[in-house]
Amino acid sequence: MAEKFVYFFGKTGTEGNKDMRNTLGGKGANLAEMATLGLPVPAGFTITCEFCNVYLAEGKKFTDAVKKQIADALKQTEAAMGMTYGDEKNPLLVSCRSGARASMPGMMETVLNVGLCSKTIPGMIAKSNERFVYDAYRRLIMMYSDVVMEKAEDIEPEEGKGIRVQLEKIMHELKEAKGYKSDTDMTTDDLKTLCERFKAKVLEVLGKAFPDDAMEQLYGGIGAVFKSWNGRRAISYRKIESIPDDWGTACNVQSMVFGNMGDTSATGVAFSRNPATGDNKFYGEWLINAQGEDVVAGIRTPFPINEETKNEQNKHLPSLETQYPALYKELHDIRDKLEAHFHDMQDIEFTIQEGNLYMLQCRNGKRTGTAAVVMAMDMLDEGLIDEKMAVLRVAPAQLVELLLPVLDPKEEKKATIIVKGLPAGPGGAVGKIVFTSEDAVAAAARGETVILIREETNPEDIDGMRAATGILTARGGMTSHAALVARGWGKCCIVGASDIHIDFAAKTVKIGGKVYTEGTVFTLNGTKGCVYAQAITTMDASENPRFIKFMTLADKYRTMGVRMNADSPADAKVGKAFGAEGIGLFRTEHMFYGKGSDEALFILRKMILAKDDAELQKAVNELFPFVKKSIKGTLEEMDGMPVTVRLLDPPLHEFVPQGEEQQKNLANALGITIAEIQKRGELLHEVNPMMGHRGIRLGLTNTAVTKMTIKAIFEASKELKAAGKNPKAEIMVPVTCSVNELKEAKKLYNAVKAEVGGDITIPYGTMIEIPRACLLADEMAQEAEFFSFGTNDLTQMTFGFSRDDIGGFLPEYLDKKVLKADPFQTIDQEGVGQLIQMAVQKGRSTRDHLKVGICGEQGGDPASVEFCFKAGLTYVSCSPFRVAIARLAAAHAAIKAGQCGCKK
Amino acid sequence: MAEKFVYFFGKTGTEGNKDMRNTLGGKGANLAEMATLGLPVPAGFTITCEFCNVYLAEGKKFTDAVKKQIADALKQTEAAMGMTYGDEKNPLLVSCRSGARASMPGMMETVLNVGLCSKTIPGMIAKSNERFVYDAYRRLIMMYSDVVMEKAEDIEPEEGKGIRVQLEKIMHELKEAKGYKSDTDMTTDDLKTLCERFKAKVLEVLGKAFPDDAMEQLYGGIGAVFKSWNGRRAISYRKIESIPDDWGTACNVQSMVFGNMGDTSATGVAFSRNPATGDNKFYGEWLINAQGEDVVAGIRTPFPINEETKNEQNKHLPSLETQYPALYKELHDIRDKLEAHFHDMQDIEFTIQEGNLYMLQCRNGKRTGTAAVVMAMDMLDEGLIDEKMAVLRVAPAQLVELLLPVLDPKEEKKATIIVKGLPAGPGGAVGKIVFTSEDAVAAAARGETVILIREETNPEDIDGMRAATGILTARGGMTSHAALVARGWGKCCIVGASDIHIDFAAKTVKIGGKVYTEGTVFTLNGTKGCVYAQAITTMDASENPRFIKFMTLADKYRTMGVRMNADSPADAKVGKAFGAEGIGLFRTEHMFYGKGSDEALFILRKMILAKDDAELQKAVNELFPFVKKSIKGTLEEMDGMPVTVRLLDPPLHEFVPQGEEQQKNLANALGITIAEIQKRGELLHEVNPMMGHRGIRLGLTNTAVTKMTIKAIFEASKELKAAGKNPKAEIMVPVTCSVNELKEAKKLYNAVKAEVGGDITIPYGTMIEIPRACLLADEMAQEAEFFSFGTNDLTQMTFGFSRDDIGGFLPEYLDKKVLKADPFQTIDQEGVGQLIQMAVQKGRSTRDHLKVGICGEQGGDPASVEFCFKAGLTYVSCSPFRVAIARLAAAHAAIKAGQCGCKK
Repeated sequence: MAEKFVYFFGKTGTEGNKDMRNTLGGKGANLAEMATLGLPVPAGFTITCEFCNVYLAEGKKFTDAVKKQIADALKQTEAAMGMTYGDEKNPLLVSCRSGARASMPGMMETVLNVGLCSKTIPGMIAKSNERFVYDAYRRLIMMYSDVVMEKAEDIEPEEGKGIRVQLEKIMHELKEAKGYKSDTDMTTDDLKTLCERFKAKVLEVLGKAFPDDAMEQLYGGIGAVFKSWNGRRAISYRKIESIPDDWGTACNVQSMVFGNMGDTSATGVAFSRNPATGDNKFYGEWLINAQGEDVVAGIRTPFPINEETKNEQNKHLPSLETQYPALYKELHDIRDKLEAHFHDMQDIEFTIQEGNLYMLQCRNGKRTGTAAVVMAMDMLDEGLIDEKMAVLRVAPAQLVELLLPVLDPKEEKKATIIVKGLPAGPGGAVGKIVFTSEDAVAAAARGETVILIREETNPEDIDGMRAATGILTARGGMTSHAALVARGWGKCCIVGASDIHIDFAAKTVKIGGKVYTEGTVFTLNGTKGCVYAQAITTMDASENPRFIKFMTLADKYRTMGVRMNADSPADAKVGKAFGAEGIGLFRTEHMFYGKGSDEALFILRKMILAKDDAELQKAVNELFPFVKKSIKGTLEEMDGMPVTVRLLDPPLHEFVPQGEEQQKNLANALGITIAEIQKRGELLHEVNPMMGHRGIRLGLTNTAVTKMTIKAIFEASKELKAAGKNPKAEIMVPVTCSVNELKEAKKLYNAVKAEVGGDITIPYGTMIEIPRACLLADEMAQEAEFFSFGTNDLTQMTFGFSRDDIGGFLPEYLDKKVLKADPFQTIDQEGVGQLIQMAVQKGRSTRDHLKVGICGEQGGDPASVEFCFKAGLTYVSCSPFRVAIARLAAAHAAIKAGQCGCKK
Repeated sequence: MAEKFVYFFGKTGTEGNKDMRNTLGGKGANLAEMATLGLPVPAGFTITCEFCNVYLAEGKKFTDAVKKQIADALKQTEAAMGMTYGDEKNPLLVSCRSGARASMPGMMETVLNVGLCSKTIPGMIAKSNERFVYDAYRRLIMMYSDVVMEKAEDIEPEEGKGIRVQLEKIMHELKEAKGYKSDTDMTTDDLKTLCERFKAKVLEVLGKAFPDDAMEQLYGGIGAVFKSWNGRRAISYRKIESIPDDWGTACNVQSMVFGNMGDTSATGVAFSRNPATGDNKFYGEWLINAQGEDVVAGIRTPFPINEETKNEQNKHLPSLETQYPALYKELHDIRDKLEAHFHDMQDIEFTIQEGNLYMLQCRNGKRTGTAAVVMAMDMLDEGLIDEKMAVLRVAPAQLVELLLPVLDPKEEKKATIIVKGLPAGPGGAVGKIVFTSEDAVAAAARGETVILIREETNPEDIDGMRAATGILTARGGMTSHAALVARGWGKCCIVGASDIHIDFAAKTVKIGGKVYTEGTVFTLNGTKGCVYAQAITTMDASENPRFIKFMTLADKYRTMGVRMNADSPADAKVGKAFGAEGIGLFRTEHMFYGKGSDEALFILRKMILAKDDAELQKAVNELFPFVKKSIKGTLEEMDGMPVTVRLLDPPLHEFVPQGEEQQKNLANALGITIAEIQKRGELLHEVNPMMGHRGIRLGLTNTAVTKMTIKAIFEASKELKAAGKNPKAEIMVPVTCSVNELKEAKKLYNAVKAEVGGDITIPYGTMIEIPRACLLADEMAQEAEFFSFGTNDLTQMTFGFSRDDIGGFLPEYLDKKVLKADPFQTIDQEGVGQLIQMAVQKGRSTRDHLKVGICGEQGGDPASVEFCFKAGLTYVSCSPFRVAIARLAAAHAAIKAGQCGCKK
């Protein structure tokens, strides 16, 4: 028997269900589920994602076997709907829609009204009216010629020469000639004329006729959906979202229902709860006498679905609740049924055809991070989900948004709102305004933060939206493209600010009579929908009580520790507020960077350029109080929590002064010439400093510094202890490749410990950041009481990639899929991960309860945190700002592994 | 029962044997073996190496248990010799000598005449004569105070203030005062006086009395031997020879016999065959009325042992053969017996006391590489050893010497010999003369080749001898320190050139009335012992038929292939002469280095600095004929043998012109300014070029070059095939870290292959030089038909060591034993080796018969070759000059593993 590629759904005999999304795509699986639930779903069938791969791999052809399955499913559909596809009298029309495993909104193609042709038009007219049918026909020609005949055939017309543009031009000319303002002004005859002109243009431009055969149209539509999986936009979106290429898309062929059959018809989209705030209120938009695309595309400002969710922009428009109370109740009941069934907020599409409600789609709705937290906690309270599910409902990356800057309310109060729009993506954003996706990308590449302003966005704007810090559109509702995408990314976004008037040619925007040129600084309040033509200070938003409660819940299920990388008491304070349980990486050298470090840095430089041991020791002695103060302050701030102090890591030449003024001062202090300073500096130059004289290599050749640092740690601990505090310092040796390095450094540790005296216990461990240290971790663990993976360096060495030099090839490697992701962003589990797992296993083979952490930058990346959990790490350490994300990611990992509850 | 630490040897009841060298040391094991064989060995006992470790680890004390064992063994010794230690009437004197598992000539301490004290002196006088006894006593005081009381107590006197120097000064003063020329002029009373003065000086300088108790002397002597294991010289020697620190030395306490008891006494050392040439002739030196140290130290020019081995230097001196024919016969019989027993050439020490022959030592003799080959082949012919043993008898590193330069005979014939000496180390050496070890080291560090000239060498000269390319001494025989050490290292050396007169203060040498200053160029012919005060051209010595026969024998047992790294037809020719079976690494980029590369390099530079694709493609097209010619020539030279061509590897900026003239020419050719050239060059600059944009990373971003190179290989192969040749090119992709890189490059390969056409099969493989490639070797092998380990880069990445930057810490790491050896010289088996083994195993898990080689520089290092064999590699590839060494090392590995004979 041939493989089953086609699944029917309808009132009876539905073959799929919600758990088959890998095969049927999200849309197909949920259409089947809704049909089984007895909801009014127009019948149809889903052609599987597996077939998409077959189709694309094998010359884009339909085999006889699959054609047979399609014919059978079409027959079932006809039976369910009581109509016949291609029939003269009672013709069935269908839509062909994409639907992948993961939602890829607007990234693939759709063809509506498929099946309209000379043969079926009279029958359709008999069932509705002539004007409606020819309007549907001209829409079909426009869409089909563009999607099926041009895009799917990989025809790349010159700018402005695409078939769609040319057809729109014809329509525009007709309207102009007749003096029409709106499409609805066109008469039946106008539409008939238009269809003839369209077909002639299609033949002229594309060299073949618009198909007049219903079956040909059907296969054309299905093929175009599958081909659009490999369209430029889809590929680009998959890269951003890390969606595998081999998932493929399903194609849903569904009976058409029409929201544009007059004033008793309508179409809408809704969320079972508010996707921006999480409020438990049915929330949606609808339009009378319209097709679904009209709502999503933002061409008309949609109506509110009910009274309680009306807002500034739509309060004057009629709600479905008041206009059609019975239909609203039916829809509201469906909303309740779906939430009870799916235990999650649903994003639904519906159409009302001549007073009858039809469900076209339902899926778990995208939501902002704020909404995710609110819904999770609400649904937990409602008993809809359990605690674990509540924790899992918020993606760790979504927390970024909760932690995102908001505008300083005091400043905002004083500022003037120049325009208001819909609050589509929360948080605050400040940046220079730009008007095209390209300009946004270019400005971001220059390091500028920008606000992208568009009439409305479409999938072609993806890169620019990504690059912008905030998005502002003139049209579209809360379910418009811009709103959906921004929400998915947790990006500040305001849509439907209809009072803005953009002049793309001049690169200006006119608001309230005033013209703003490109580069003007705007501030957006994406939570309220307010726009300001000035910069407003942004601030943190971590004091949300709902957020704190949610994080407490997450911590209940988390088993892996979360620390922070912090180098000062101030850093430490920030991270503690985010829930850090200690410092996993205190970089001694960071006290020489940045503000207030001048004096210490100057002494350090004297030390580096010392000509002999005496000069060196003198500088080291001078440096001691600075190092001790920095360490002591941090230990005090973190009282009772572990603080892992890493010994000096970077190559010394990093600190050699480059400026002449600095060189002069140093020369004076050392009593030598500038030339001598430069000469000594040059001696420190290295060909490959990343693999040079650094870390413990420096620590063993320059033992005075090592001892000084260890002494600072011991003395600080001793003094704090004497003052009744509970300092918990740990000493970490960087860049080790051999246990003998640890043994040598331990001699220095022991000597200092004996010298300082007192009953101070300071665990002694090592960074694991050199492949050899992983390979010989069993030996390393004989000396080291703990490991901490330095995944930045480990990634560099394992790949042989210098992070500073990957610009020349990494973009191309990501483009060509040589690498799945930038390994410096997320741990390369296949390669680097193997070394990590090996090191954990080997390390614990010689030291049972070896404590193992990670302090590379990936420590705050959710996928990396999950990997660390699986690898058995004791804790992750990340930047203070990412601590909450790591906590949640760790909770997710524990829950998914069924290993939760061990900690608290 | 306590552990057995003491083993007796003597006429009866010998407890050890030759197989116990790990416990008894080489000397102790062989003393036991000789005693068991019934040879005249003075009785004694050996305290084990294990005890040395115990003694050094546990506070340098003797436990009661070991004291008891020593006392028992001493009783057995007394019984065997019929004398009693410390006895008034018939006292036994003993020597305390070191003896480790591996020979460490002169690196540790010896004390002779132990047991002479007030109590035993009268009895000794009764057995011999007063003068002899007081001479022995003054020798004991000098040696004991130096070795036991000063050195072993870690007293480090100022230069010239050591106790030995001070005692020598006293003796010198006495001789001066009396007008004596020689030690032998001293009367009994003189010696008595000297002994008293010596003892007073010892008390004054060292603060304690010279011990007058025999037992105290014994334990002092034993302890000093053990302590000398950790003496500076011993540690330094162990580092050079890679001898583990934890082996320890044994201490041999043996009854004294005296070669200096008058004219019927003598002492000597001999080799059962000539250690320099391998000639099967008994070869040795002896001195009448002398102690052993007199022969070895080179103070007196020793006599030849027999007539047939007399030479220029000693032909006028009496041989043992003529002087004492019976004793000579007895010794010669022992020589035969030992060779038959040990199946190897023996190095023996003997003493004749009043007409009685005693054997003091025998061991496998060190020999030159030439001698090793000659002896191995002779002993094979004699049936003394089998083929495998013959192959094993030559250490691979010894071949270096056979391949070492010899002087051009035509030039040498015309040159004037300024002095002759003994040919102690074969080959030719040319260099500037220096007179101290320090100067030799300093000059070598500057990159100069030097000839070290010394009166005689001693262990303090080790570093200088190592640094020098040739060694010339004024004194000493073929068994002197200089000769032994030079032979061990295969270094050119002439000893006993007594007509040279060195003025160390002036740093000059006077030879035949002429004065030569430091820095003058000398040439040595170490095979003949001739010295020239001019440079003579050196040449290769690979046409030795004995050598070729030996290598053929080695190949019979070798199973692993040996290829060479070669980049031109000329290189290829050299390596083929040394037996290379193919090219394992042909570096495409090498055609741009060195002589004759100007034109190609110029085009390459145009390519690198091209501003756009068109300019780039133009340069690539120009480059094509050069690349093709180079590859074709090499394939032709290697007809029928595999040639692995590596695609372009180094980062492009390596080729950016730095000189202004070159920049100018290039600017003219490209029609741009020098500033623009510099700017484009700077764009290519990288922070860590070793981990930057190179290898396949460049190959995939700059596909034009990759395709051009692949095309050159295919076209060259096609043309050679058409001409009836059998080209066997292989294409190797460098610096890969992911199988996707191989897949992408394979697309280019396939495109070129289709373009060139013809039935050309070219295996496609990859370098494995990035840790990640090892970790994912199973995936890599899905695309790669072969692997070749690039151990240079793999070592860099695995350690995180930049080879260019290790100077700052590697010396200290080796000193402190953080690393056992320089991992760039010999494969780090623990770390890098783990990755290699993993890669071989994983690679073959997805491709059964995956061919795996190594082409890093360690491919010619014997230890690395053995490791490669164990790891299951198909072949090693090394520099042409090291091919023979690799062949022999591979044969050794196969024989040791019992896996030989599989190949031929």
